[in-house]
Amino acid sequence: MTLLEIQNYLSQSGYDAYILTRNNMFLGQDILPEENKILALSGFSGSAGNLIICPNKSYLLVDGRYELQASQEVDQTQIEVVCTNDSIATWINNNFLTPFKIAYNPWCHSVNEVDYWQRVLKKHTFIADNSEIFGSRLTIKDVHIFEHDIEFCGISTEEKISYLTNFIHEHNLDAYFISACDSVSWLLNLRSNLLADTPIFRAFALIDKDGNVSLFTNDMNKIKKELSAFKNQTIGISYAKTPKQIQLLMKEQKIWLENISNPIDEWKAIKNSIELSGIKNAHLRDGIAMVKFLYWLENNWSSQDELSIVKKLRSFREKEAHFYSDSFGTIAAFGPNGAIVHYQPTSKTNLKLTKDSVLLLDSGAQYFDGTTDITRTIAIGTPSDDIRDSFTQVLKAHIAASSAVFPEGTSGSVIDAITRAQLWQFGKEYHHGTGHGVGCFLSVHEGPFSLSSKNTHPLKAGMITSIEPGFYKTGEYGIRIENLAYIVSEPNIQSEMNLLRFEPLTLVPLDKRLINKYLLSSAEIKWLNTYHADVYQKLHKHLDSKTAKWLQQACAPL
Amino acid sequence: MTLLEIQNYLSQSGYDAYILTRNNMFLGQDILPEENKILALSGFSGSAGNLIICPNKSYLLVDGRYELQASQEVDQTQIEVVCTNDSIATWINNNFLTPFKIAYNPWCHSVNEVDYWQRVLKKHTFIADNSEIFGSRLTIKDVHIFEHDIEFCGISTEEKISYLTNFIHEHNLDAYFISACDSVSWLLNLRSNLLADTPIFRAFALIDKDGNVSLFTNDMNKIKKELSAFKNQTIGISYAKTPKQIQLLMKEQKIWLENISNPIDEWKAIKNSIELSGIKNAHLRDGIAMVKFLYWLENNWSSQDELSIVKKLRSFREKEAHFYSDSFGTIAAFGPNGAIVHYQPTSKTNLKLTKDSVLLLDSGAQYFDGTTDITRTIAIGTPSDDIRDSFTQVLKAHIAASSAVFPEGTSGSVIDAITRAQLWQFGKEYHHGTGHGVGCFLSVHEGPFSLSSKNTHPLKAGMITSIEPGFYKTGEYGIRIENLAYIVSEPNIQSEMNLLRFEPLTLVPLDKRLINKYLLSSAEIKWLNTYHADVYQKLHKHLDSKTAKWLQQACAPL
Repeated sequence: MTLLEIQNYLSQSGYDAYILTRNNMFLGQDILPEENKILALSGFSGSAGNLIICPNKSYLLVDGRYELQASQEVDQTQIEVVCTNDSIATWINNNFLTPFKIAYNPWCHSVNEVDYWQRVLKKHTFIADNSEIFGSRLTIKDVHIFEHDIEFCGISTEEKISYLTNFIHEHNLDAYFISACDSVSWLLNLRSNLLADTPIFRAFALIDKDGNVSLFTNDMNKIKKELSAFKNQTIGISYAKTPKQIQLLMKEQKIWLENISNPIDEWKAIKNSIELSGIKNAHLRDGIAMVKFLYWLENNWSSQDELSIVKKLRSFREKEAHFYSDSFGTIAAFGPNGAIVHYQPTSKTNLKLTKDSVLLLDSGAQYFDGTTDITRTIAIGTPSDDIRDSFTQVLKAHIAASSAVFPEGTSGSVIDAITRAQLWQFGKEYHHGTGHGVGCFLSVHEGPFSLSSKNTHPLKAGMITSIEPGFYKTGEYGIRIENLAYIVSEPNIQSEMNLLRFEPLTLVPLDKRLINKYLLSSAEIKWLNTYHADVYQKLHKHLDSKTAKWLQQACAPL
Repeated sequence: MTLLEIQNYLSQSGYDAYILTRNNMFLGQDILPEENKILALSGFSGSAGNLIICPNKSYLLVDGRYELQASQEVDQTQIEVVCTNDSIATWINNNFLTPFKIAYNPWCHSVNEVDYWQRVLKKHTFIADNSEIFGSRLTIKDVHIFEHDIEFCGISTEEKISYLTNFIHEHNLDAYFISACDSVSWLLNLRSNLLADTPIFRAFALIDKDGNVSLFTNDMNKIKKELSAFKNQTIGISYAKTPKQIQLLMKEQKIWLENISNPIDEWKAIKNSIELSGIKNAHLRDGIAMVKFLYWLENNWSSQDELSIVKKLRSFREKEAHFYSDSFGTIAAFGPNGAIVHYQPTSKTNLKLTKDSVLLLDSGAQYFDGTTDITRTIAIGTPSDDIRDSFTQVLKAHIAASSAVFPEGTSGSVIDAITRAQLWQFGKEYHHGTGHGVGCFLSVHEGPFSLSSKNTHPLKAGMITSIEPGFYKTGEYGIRIENLAYIVSEPNIQSEMNLLRFEPLTLVPLDKRLINKYLLSSAEIKWLNTYHADVYQKLHKHLDSKTAKWLQQACAPL
């Protein structure tokens, strides 16, 4: 399909506009490059944006981060690039002043999203149209599907399904439809090699009250057939996460729907003891690889560039047991590149490492027993006092979160506030979340909670989060300090509440050369020294004597 | 009306239930004691609760705070006391299992509230019924209405109305209907003596695009007549704050409605320079009265009780210029009484002051130039180390908020988190908000923002808030430290953001006898010493030499 073909189709169908997003039917999950319809139609390669196609004109809506990139990549005689923070609904409201017939692909938008458009944009008519021309088809690849061993995932598929059948009974349902494929992967202990960095098994699943599972991977006609068996019965689905098309199909089959949040989100977020033990082991090995890399870097940086570093780091990780893949594209950003949001080095942007600045290195791996995600900011040469002060201020923010004590059920927004407040006192801020949930050999970003200003999901023991405040000075440098941590009970403080705190998983020293000790309180210094002592104690026996000696110095008390 | 009369009426009308709240038509604003329908029908005198009346049985829904009180006050052969944190909607959903015809008084519930019931409780039918038997009538009293002088309010009624007519034009409205009477009082610079502690002028107002104002104080039939002039025109109202009945009347008159938040909420919250200067003066005089009282108390506590203290404190305040009334019923709570939420001393509960505990004293005044609200916790004798530790921990929380720096637009929930986190590290918590907005010679609690976990309204320079963390140990003592503060720009920190911070308004020393210095950081000690120096410097010249000397010692550096 081309833009012109779609525009002709709109004219023929009497549509005034068509809404196209990056989503495939697994809403908001990773897509394959060849599934990126926005890229195919507009040339825009950014990872956020929406295309509004009208018969005679089209609009690419991007936010401020992507304005420059979009205007360079898009042929603006065909498509107007609109830089806006407005939602699709707000933009339509402000720009389509007469009543429009607006088509959308019901596979690519959630029930809630479409219902919201219909509720707030009453003037316009929204029409579900999943014609092939809109390219809703998934890419079908020769995919290797494999089991996630019980020694890593800890709970058998049978047991997990029994959780869900209990849930189905408790809610008086006949079945539950799961549209989130990370939930399906978790439930069935299945993984696949479809995506490069996320071993997700991509499927919808329908589980009935007897625990029978129907899977839908790409033959979506099968869904309709399977659903016909549930006529006049009740199926639970999450309107927030399920494509509108599924709801339409169910209604067509005269199925009663109940909008119930996917309970697997929460079960999956709270890691079981076997997962947790595996994740700790994975972080131990990841720490070993990182420390070997850091020692190597200290002696070799002058001949390196961002791309060579990405390769070298991967080579250390690959040697570790249970390594499967990176967990996302490594961000190796030197000097000014560190200040670019979502930077990933390419041959065009690749910088050599030179004195005196910092390297921001955000990377992670998928091991069969756990997923890692770590950012270290590393001195190259002798960075300025300004860089050291900024690093130390970000460190204060990192420690504020890492050492926080909070009651069970506190929301991630609270931790976000406590963290950010440390930087505000120095007039600084970062325009991203403070942390995100992390899967177990699954997505490196996973819900339902995050440490961010709007997330109200209650935090509980067993959840894993990143803690990653930062500071970015345009044209100069970027700083981020990221550990993964798991949430544990804090029984040592007398209280009527169930208190929780974070326990670090990541075991890699922070670069002391970047610390201005005089900005730290004694409690902050104590946290850092305790963390470093733990890193050294856990890692040193796995290292050769030279590297162990380097680590000892890197972890010596401040 | 009696419960039985209402029940007979329900039977005759074929209703299965009737929802009765404490509200009059000025939803959520203070009511006169004689307007308290819940009290009249059930005997329950608490300030939160709902009555669900069925033809044969009634239910008083109260939260945990009021369970004991309700069960003591209510005849449970007539009315079942239900202790629940559920909303009315949730309770109905869980308890009325067959379809019910449910009546409500459309004067006493907002549009949003009723619409919400209708949306989530589809099984039931909700019927607006404002029959006299439900007692929607306002108490009509001989009320003194007076102008709030321009020297105090700072902006003329004409100018304020011009803000609103601009707003009406910007939103393409023909008029705006204001249902919040503190907004009406502010807009028209009018006050009245209807309520004991809040000089609010109780009225609805309809302002048209030419600035013509129609006021409705108790003859609500007038509303209908005035509205008829707006047939086929558009009126803005806030669905969250306007009685359902107003919407019904407008629809009856074929008026177009637009749901737009009341803009006066925000204008009123940001104090103008004349208000701010008056409020500072009011706090200076309130500080003088408080310091005189504290000096007197130190020498006289052994012969006093809670009630005598309330009287004495009032006598000091009454001597100050521009004094009008208390701003709420004074909470003087000694020892274990301090741990009772919403405690106010009565002859039954009145405690004598004895060694060795603390007096929690939460009080405030309405001065023509400003409203005050202050809590001090005062040592009586030599309180235990436990009390001193708790006081110091609450002080740390108070300082965390008071010294916070944050970007313009930060929500109150962020400040709430920063404050509470200080107490969590000691396993402590308080089950109330951290702070509330305060009017200028108006309600001592005012929106639209508050420092509480769910408030997302952006904070801006010129807003006034209380900062009042606490800790309550049941059966032993209560601690709260409350200052009012206004929000100012912080230009001394270099930043790309507009940074804000709090500047204390309240000028009264904190009791150093209750501080365990070893729990404070040097930054916290510095904040306290700076605050005390400011208190001394501003107040001492207005005091006799003995009181000034006492203050000097009370404000000496820690």
